[in-house]
Amino acid sequence: MSRSVFETSIAKVQGFTGHAATDTLAVEEPLEIQLGYGPPADRKVKSISVTMRTPGYDFELAAGFLMTEGVIHDPADIERLGYAAEGMDESPEEESETTILPYQPRRNIVRVDLAPNVQVQIAHIERNFYTTSSCGICGKASLLALRSVCPPRVRNDFSMSAELLYTLPSQLRDAQTIFNNTGGLHGVGLFNSNGELMSMHEDVGRHNAVDKLLGSEFLIDHVPLRNTLLLLSGRASFELLQKALMGGVSMVAAVGAPSSLAVQVARQFDITLVGFLREDHFNIYHGAEHITGCESASREEHQ
Amino acid sequence: MSRSVFETSIAKVQGFTGHAATDTLAVEEPLEIQLGYGPPADRKVKSISVTMRTPGYDFELAAGFLMTEGVIHDPADIERLGYAAEGMDESPEEESETTILPYQPRRNIVRVDLAPNVQVQIAHIERNFYTTSSCGICGKASLLALRSVCPPRVRNDFSMSAELLYTLPSQLRDAQTIFNNTGGLHGVGLFNSNGELMSMHEDVGRHNAVDKLLGSEFLIDHVPLRNTLLLLSGRASFELLQKALMGGVSMVAAVGAPSSLAVQVARQFDITLVGFLREDHFNIYHGAEHITGCESASREEHQ
Repeated sequence: MSRSVFETSIAKVQGFTGHAATDTLAVEEPLEIQLGYGPPADRKVKSISVTMRTPGYDFELAAGFLMTEGVIHDPADIERLGYAAEGMDESPEEESETTILPYQPRRNIVRVDLAPNVQVQIAHIERNFYTTSSCGICGKASLLALRSVCPPRVRNDFSMSAELLYTLPSQLRDAQTIFNNTGGLHGVGLFNSNGELMSMHEDVGRHNAVDKLLGSEFLIDHVPLRNTLLLLSGRASFELLQKALMGGVSMVAAVGAPSSLAVQVARQFDITLVGFLREDHFNIYHGAEHITGCESASREEHQ
Repeated sequence: MSRSVFETSIAKVQGFTGHAATDTLAVEEPLEIQLGYGPPADRKVKSISVTMRTPGYDFELAAGFLMTEGVIHDPADIERLGYAAEGMDESPEEESETTILPYQPRRNIVRVDLAPNVQVQIAHIERNFYTTSSCGICGKASLLALRSVCPPRVRNDFSMSAELLYTLPSQLRDAQTIFNNTGGLHGVGLFNSNGELMSMHEDVGRHNAVDKLLGSEFLIDHVPLRNTLLLLSGRASFELLQKALMGGVSMVAAVGAPSSLAVQVARQFDITLVGFLREDHFNIYHGAEHITGCESASREEHQ
């Protein structure tokens, strides 16, 4: 199987009937880009970006990132491009042709060594790259890092019926259309166990919409938000699950697909995770026992 | 009108007939979050994040960001929360209650002063925040910054017929389904003036998909990619238009909505921008004269 997709066991619910199924997830893993620059006698290496990406075409990603940021302007500006590893010497090579290392799976750091004549303004780069959220340097490190900062989790005993779940996306859409008709905003909604919309926020960036919602609750001392469901109008990424975890949310439902790392966070920290929540079907990626009112979707089926 | 939406004149095309219309865009502007921390006698202020967001609920966004990153754990950890401005003294205040400044429009820096007893590991924060792309500190600064790094633009004389345009999204979807069936990947495609798909990339992050595509072309010395169209499977943000600009792309078409800042980049740098490209309709945000074969959509109508 390609590194860019990942198969996992889920419960598929159609109407009010669930069955075990296999789902294919888009893999999400961090990629760090390191820049080697300066004259051979005074070579420096600096980590300039970490992005959550789907593995594959990592060298192209690094080259594209540096070109679109205005750091490099010509393929010859790159002296060497490869995964950073033990075998990759920190000292500069004598030969100056571009070397593309063969593709090595499970590598999450790409190092780009610039030709010695390429001028780099590192201060300018640092000022111009903007940050969106936190992560570690590999999926596993991301999860470990989360464990060290996340608030203590209590037993998750928040449940919702399939019947109520189906009503949530239209509630969020109705609330969104009051505020905008641009089609350009991600919406997030916070629901209680009765399926009532408690709060709604929107933003061009989905992580910002979640920050706005969780930040409002935090400022009035409502965090941890136990026994609540966070509904996402789009896809569920690592970053959004991480934020839900930090906010103490019990269940996350997304209208779109979850990523591999989002599912891993949900499973490791026991957040019920529903994806592809549509009018008459959804997938349960974790916590099927917390979705009531649908036959055979819960773990009890395995007993 | 709310700060979160922005009205602009566009050409709306239905089938092969265009007419002038007004469209409402989601506003996208950078927000910088500054953290004030440490004892009163040795107060430090550090910029810890810049995110592209829709203005509104900026304090909630900042609080939510800091809480979900594990920097603060209780509303009392915040001593003062407000827009950074001349009126905001760099030296610490004596009083320790949380002060929420009134909402001031056109403010893109939020400063969060922590209570003196709050321990902050700045090195940890810096290590954990990951970067996605570049921007300046306000929409205008972003555009100015772009002008200083973007390659020289040549006259944009790339055109495409509405008939060909309508075929592009299904070409991209067909190419995407070969590689995945997760529903979780953003796709981007590069097309020539005959509407032929030259290259396609996918990623959980749309900026990564664009970097992969432009990076592949860059590595084989195809950049600047004049006389090409970049098709985005989702929405068009500032970041994606910036990348298209740096790659020398002539036309960007998005299946979803563009943001306000994306439209501004397109207009300032003369990139033809099409949004909401569906089976039988689309909107032209800039460069209507480059879309042929539809009545009254081009500037010629005004002559």
